[in-house]
Amino acid sequence: LLVESGRVEAFSDGVLAIAITLLVLDLKVPEDHVAHALLAAWPTYLAYLSAFLYIGVVWVNHHALFTRIASVDAGLLWCNLALLLTVSVLPFPTAVLASAMNHGTHGDQVAAVVLYAIVQSLMALSWYVIYGYLMRRPHLLAEGITADFFRGERARPVIGIVAPVIAVLVSTVSPRAALATYVILPVFYAVTAQGWAPRTAGPDPAA
Amino acid sequence: LLVESGRVEAFSDGVLAIAITLLVLDLKVPEDHVAHALLAAWPTYLAYLSAFLYIGVVWVNHHALFTRIASVDAGLLWCNLALLLTVSVLPFPTAVLASAMNHGTHGDQVAAVVLYAIVQSLMALSWYVIYGYLMRRPHLLAEGITADFFRGERARPVIGIVAPVIAVLVSTVSPRAALATYVILPVFYAVTAQGWAPRTAGPDPAA
Amino acid sequence: LLVESGRVEAFSDGVLAIAITLLVLDLKVPEDHVAHALLAAWPTYLAYLSAFLYIGVVWVNHHALFTRIASVDAGLLWCNLALLLTVSVLPFPTAVLASAMNHGTHGDQVAAVVLYAIVQSLMALSWYVIYGYLMRRPHLLAEGITADFFRGERARPVIGIVAPVIAVLVSTVSPRAALATYVILPVFYAVTAQGWAPRTAGPDPAA
Amino acid sequence: LLVESGRVEAFSDGVLAIAITLLVLDLKVPEDHVAHALLAAWPTYLAYLSAFLYIGVVWVNHHALFTRIASVDAGLLWCNLALLLTVSVLPFPTAVLASAMNHGTHGDQVAAVVLYAIVQSLMALSWYVIYGYLMRRPHLLAEGITADFFRGERARPVIGIVAPVIAVLVSTVSPRAALATYVILPVFYAVTAQGWAPRTAGPDPAA
Repeated sequence: LLVESGRVEAFSDGVLAIAITLLVLDLKVPEDHVAHALLAAWPTYLAYLSAFLYIGVVWVNHHALFTRIASVDAGLLWCNLALLLTVSVLPFPTAVLASAMNHGTHGDQVAAVVLYAIVQSLMALSWYVIYGYLMRRPHLLAEGITADFFRGERARPVIGIVAPVIAVLVSTVSPRAALATYVILPVFYAVTAQGWAPRTAGPDPAA
Repeated sequence: LLVESGRVEAFSDGVLAIAITLLVLDLKVPEDHVAHALLAAWPTYLAYLSAFLYIGVVWVNHHALFTRIASVDAGLLWCNLALLLTVSVLPFPTAVLASAMNHGTHGDQVAAVVLYAIVQSLMALSWYVIYGYLMRRPHLLAEGITADFFRGERARPVIGIVAPVIAVLVSTVSPRAALATYVILPVFYAVTAQGWAPRTAGPDPAA
Repeated sequence: LLVESGRVEAFSDGVLAIAITLLVLDLKVPEDHVAHALLAAWPTYLAYLSAFLYIGVVWVNHHALFTRIASVDAGLLWCNLALLLTVSVLPFPTAVLASAMNHGTHGDQVAAVVLYAIVQSLMALSWYVIYGYLMRRPHLLAEGITADFFRGERARPVIGIVAPVIAVLVSTVSPRAALATYVILPVFYAVTAQGWAPRTAGPDPAA
Repeated sequence: LLVESGRVEAFSDGVLAIAITLLVLDLKVPEDHVAHALLAAWPTYLAYLSAFLYIGVVWVNHHALFTRIASVDAGLLWCNLALLLTVSVLPFPTAVLASAMNHGTHGDQVAAVVLYAIVQSLMALSWYVIYGYLMRRPHLLAEGITADFFRGERARPVIGIVAPVIAVLVSTVSPRAALATYVILPVFYAVTAQGWAPRTAGPDPAA
């Protein structure tokens, strides 16, 4: 089974668009002391912005990925579904983290960081699996794209698998310091959305 | 009325993408004892994963179905809408089941299994009706697809109609054992998404 | 401003797909006495099915409408947005009705029927306005479609404007009897989705 | 990186369609005294209508914008994501405003107007940034569209940045009077969706 990638992109776009828009449901309307309640809820807004940026970055990367794919087989379909699973579940750890940062104990905050880290690592793992899958199936790639490109790209999700582990270790000392990874990781993926480095995108000019 | 299948696919993709993404709303944010509450909620995560897999499998099967359809008439439009109904209602029995497994009595758990089984059977029934409808209308099929293909395919939803009945019977003894069908059925439909058997997809080479 | 109708259809499909899928959020998960609670909630399921059918019928009619439209001007864009407004608000009166039928007083039930009737009449009114708008702008229509077609079609939404008024009158005696319109109206629009009568779809053969 | 604008439009359509449809979730079902509760909730309905109109107007303007864009680069992708952020968060300030107008103190109402004003100004700012970005990148524009067009258009979001500041000042005297901007601004953007004035859409005929 080889299908053109159009309907897979449309379905993925739908899931990503819904996941990014559903995030707003986690912003709770304060019933009284509105000014004070709004100001006190800043960890929730930060979590909202971070998750919005995260899903936005996934969309940009997904978009860039599919410009390099010509057709989709059954295996890639399931890999893509695993990626969509980790993205569409993201509002949950985001909300748990915002709630724990807002009024949880130190133990609650570490637990929330661990939950978020698990989802982040699984998301990065699904990218790693997709890149490895494409690396071994050059017949699925668009014209001019070589398997070597995806070999080089795999370094990016490795960072995304390791960084959350560091965040968990940091959180045992200071949960708030661990939040930095939720800003650093999406920015890193935003900047490198077009590929890790020019030398991996094509044949080495010095070769 | 015969229309090209494009807009029907787009609408179906939209409904399936939304249904699969809305599932995250059933994951409740714990207010305190976060680590313990997250661990205790494992039946909810299992229900989430199962429903995500289920809807993902329906999408893959729906995608495979429409590659075999060239045009859509009014009857097929209503059959497709019935299928979308059973899929988009799935988050409800999933949430009832997760809640009952988490803190319900034995009676509550059996009731939840019965509700889930009804929705599962109706979903399989709508596939059965669609296959039967297409079997009798070869003029709707894509080039090279014969009515015989859909005749053979009808065995797949029959399994999906019967299996939930067995799950209900099992649940009266052990509701947790009945949960196995929620993993087995989507995996079965995933594996057979491209058609039941090669011999039903085309003329028998031995004939 | 004249634009091709493609992106308007895509946006409308999105809104209709979301509205029809969001309906499931009104089905509440019972916390205990699950079997009894599920059976007692039948008015909610009826309301869910009726609203699902309603939005499904709107999609089929919308689909049929746009096969007759070649291009869209600013006025039609706003008319279409008004129609989408009445559809996407439908889950609200549906939920109010289900709640009132389930445990409301006679007065609550009449109030819920009035609310539902207002939304139904406004929805029918927006179709009436769209048909009248197209009747006077033949340059927007697809090849072979005449203004006369939409003149004849306007009788259909007139029924949809009047029927809810009758439902309100009936509800003062028996709110449950008024519910019949929520089944009759969508079935009527489903059956006549392709146009009111053959004689209005083209030139009179006797002429 | 230059991509055709198709998938960006599809993703944006998805986000806008979901945001406009999610608004209905803020309409709360009254449990008793239904008639009285429905009538008393009129500020909620006004907020719903205003937000629906707002997002609808953004869609019409977004649609008009992309008819003038031929291709999308990475910077425009991020600008567009910022715009989608301000739109998809709109249900939150809308709900806060409706709640405060319904049963808040004077201080709550001013706080809600300030929150709404911040989101409105950021939304207008993101349009301003997009117009400025396109003004300096004529190679992204569709044939026949000049940079001058977007230079003239920038006056429109400037009004959208300033008006909410006035609304905040007004709200300190009368929060209800400040609500007028939530009707005036979307109507202004609706009327000028095709461009500020004919003279900015092309070369000055007198020149």
